[in-house]
Amino acid sequence: MKADAGGARRGRLTTPHGAIETPVFMPVGTQATVKSLRNEALEELGARIILGNTYHLYLRPGHELIRKLGGLHKFMSWNRAILTDSGGYQVFSLSELRKITNEGVRFRSHLDGSEHLLTPEKAAEIQLALGADIAMVLDECIETPAPRDIAQAAVKRTTAWAKRAHTHFLQQAQRNGELSQWHFGIVQGATFADLRRESTQQLLEIDFPGYAVGGLAVGEPHGVTCEMTVVVTELLPREKPRYLMGVGRPEQLADYVALGIDMMDCVLPTRAARHACIYTSEGKVLIKNARYAQDQRPLDPVCSCSVCKRYTRAYLRHLFAAGELTAAILATHHNIHFYLDFMRQIREAIEFGNLAKFSSEVQARYVAGPA
Amino acid sequence: MKADAGGARRGRLTTPHGAIETPVFMPVGTQATVKSLRNEALEELGARIILGNTYHLYLRPGHELIRKLGGLHKFMSWNRAILTDSGGYQVFSLSELRKITNEGVRFRSHLDGSEHLLTPEKAAEIQLALGADIAMVLDECIETPAPRDIAQAAVKRTTAWAKRAHTHFLQQAQRNGELSQWHFGIVQGATFADLRRESTQQLLEIDFPGYAVGGLAVGEPHGVTCEMTVVVTELLPREKPRYLMGVGRPEQLADYVALGIDMMDCVLPTRAARHACIYTSEGKVLIKNARYAQDQRPLDPVCSCSVCKRYTRAYLRHLFAAGELTAAILATHHNIHFYLDFMRQIREAIEFGNLAKFSSEVQARYVAGPA
Repeated sequence: MKADAGGARRGRLTTPHGAIETPVFMPVGTQATVKSLRNEALEELGARIILGNTYHLYLRPGHELIRKLGGLHKFMSWNRAILTDSGGYQVFSLSELRKITNEGVRFRSHLDGSEHLLTPEKAAEIQLALGADIAMVLDECIETPAPRDIAQAAVKRTTAWAKRAHTHFLQQAQRNGELSQWHFGIVQGATFADLRRESTQQLLEIDFPGYAVGGLAVGEPHGVTCEMTVVVTELLPREKPRYLMGVGRPEQLADYVALGIDMMDCVLPTRAARHACIYTSEGKVLIKNARYAQDQRPLDPVCSCSVCKRYTRAYLRHLFAAGELTAAILATHHNIHFYLDFMRQIREAIEFGNLAKFSSEVQARYVAGPA
Repeated sequence: MKADAGGARRGRLTTPHGAIETPVFMPVGTQATVKSLRNEALEELGARIILGNTYHLYLRPGHELIRKLGGLHKFMSWNRAILTDSGGYQVFSLSELRKITNEGVRFRSHLDGSEHLLTPEKAAEIQLALGADIAMVLDECIETPAPRDIAQAAVKRTTAWAKRAHTHFLQQAQRNGELSQWHFGIVQGATFADLRRESTQQLLEIDFPGYAVGGLAVGEPHGVTCEMTVVVTELLPREKPRYLMGVGRPEQLADYVALGIDMMDCVLPTRAARHACIYTSEGKVLIKNARYAQDQRPLDPVCSCSVCKRYTRAYLRHLFAAGELTAAILATHHNIHFYLDFMRQIREAIEFGNLAKFSSEVQARYVAGPA
């Protein structure tokens, strides 16, 4: 790790499926694909790591089937790194009739209503079956804003679960002879700085190889997200990777990096693309707008992606207006390029020691909006 | 043109956007895109010509807009050949409240209910505005099976329209200095051999540079389609291209070629792909079937396309089950490869004088079904 004058760090994370330059943004491939992109496109875009969702893959096609077919990398034919979440967040946000006990969380599938029990041990087992390069512990995710007592109880349970998960993951990984997989703890504590610190301290005692900050960017102001993040990163050891889960908007990425975050993921670039929201160096372009009907410029005049090199705004607008799948393909390609290229610029800025300048320029562009 | 022992012909069609080896299958790009494929993929697949739909492009984004932006090739960034239909078939199948007079056909848009009048002259103008390499005359398409008097009246009107369209197209093209565009007549006559002959003779008098057979493969038995096709091709001059519109199924393509057809188009490979129907050398594979859940073979074991080289049936099945857009992308890519590769084999078979043998082998495989 090489630190900037602020908290920003340049690093390299080594996994069984290649090294990853950090800070890194991980495109989300929920159901064993980054929506509307072939793996060939992700490779062209330079993605070194993507995220898979344990909850979805457990329910369909099932982790046992994926294990049998050689693991998630082989199943989806992706030979670069994969991080899987623990399924916790989706259980709490997507499933019905969930019931949390100390044992784990019982829930009904959003697909067919079938009942399932996800425990810390089970979440570890699923991720080992998937063969994730980086696995996450099961944590208790709560709705926000949360009363202090609820947040405190969630921290307590998250720590207890983290201990069990850590032990179980190590045992299982040793048994399988797979000791190169990472397993990260997740800090909870809602928007209470002291609870965040408490959660961090407790997880540090377990001694995970990496730490995530969970339960943020779920509706609270950006300033609060930053405040909670720095409370955690200040306590974390310098040599271990830090992952801020589920962020973020382009204009926020550099802020998180400046607070010492190494890894981020978000559905925003892919989801926004499918809704005709294009990220550009000049801000968001809502490409369905009639003003683009005759606009022969590329989506982003300074972008070097294969979409911007070939297609016009007028054409993309038409494809969206006509409801063509090709619209999602092209827009997603560009948006992922935008995020990954943005991270390349952030890494470069850290190396040159001018992340703060870079960050303020980005902010200015986004406030100004598109040309 | 080089003829096989039967009626099959090997040829080359020269257009302002490159030469096309015939017999050729043209993927359908209704709304200025072949659904779920980037142009880069079509180029990788070796497509030399695609089809655009005048009806759709006229309504959205509008031919005037496309003309203003430099024509359809530039608008969609496709530098190879484009054939556009006349819009007739879509007016008759998609729009509401159509009223046919000798002047043309008045219809309401299926998009917004707006009223439009499509005349033979207008259809020619739209296609000139789009800059099609090959344009088609407006014909009267009737429902089948049709009574003889209806079919006869449609032939009469189609011929009258064809004369007007031919004159107008030449005038406009001369005025624009665009004399390299092709303009094909369309033979009608439903399933009446004598009407088909009459229609052909009348169009031959107009002297089009190429001829299409329309109004077939709309529900009648394959034998009837073939019978009507050969009635027409027997009368057509050897040196001019012949296009059988809207066909066909893989096991039928060689039959049409054997009857002297040079060009075909069909939504089948793309539409079937989106519905999880995969064409393979062993017949159709309905990939959502549970039997493929753990099938680690490629979609088609003998296929050389980039999808078959990388992905498994199990993975494709999962993507379809999960409703992922990536499923349509991969399946469409493979199906178009299948069709274009099939046509390559047909052209090779013609050159070696063994199309009949090739055709019977295909039939046998398709009757046998997938392994």
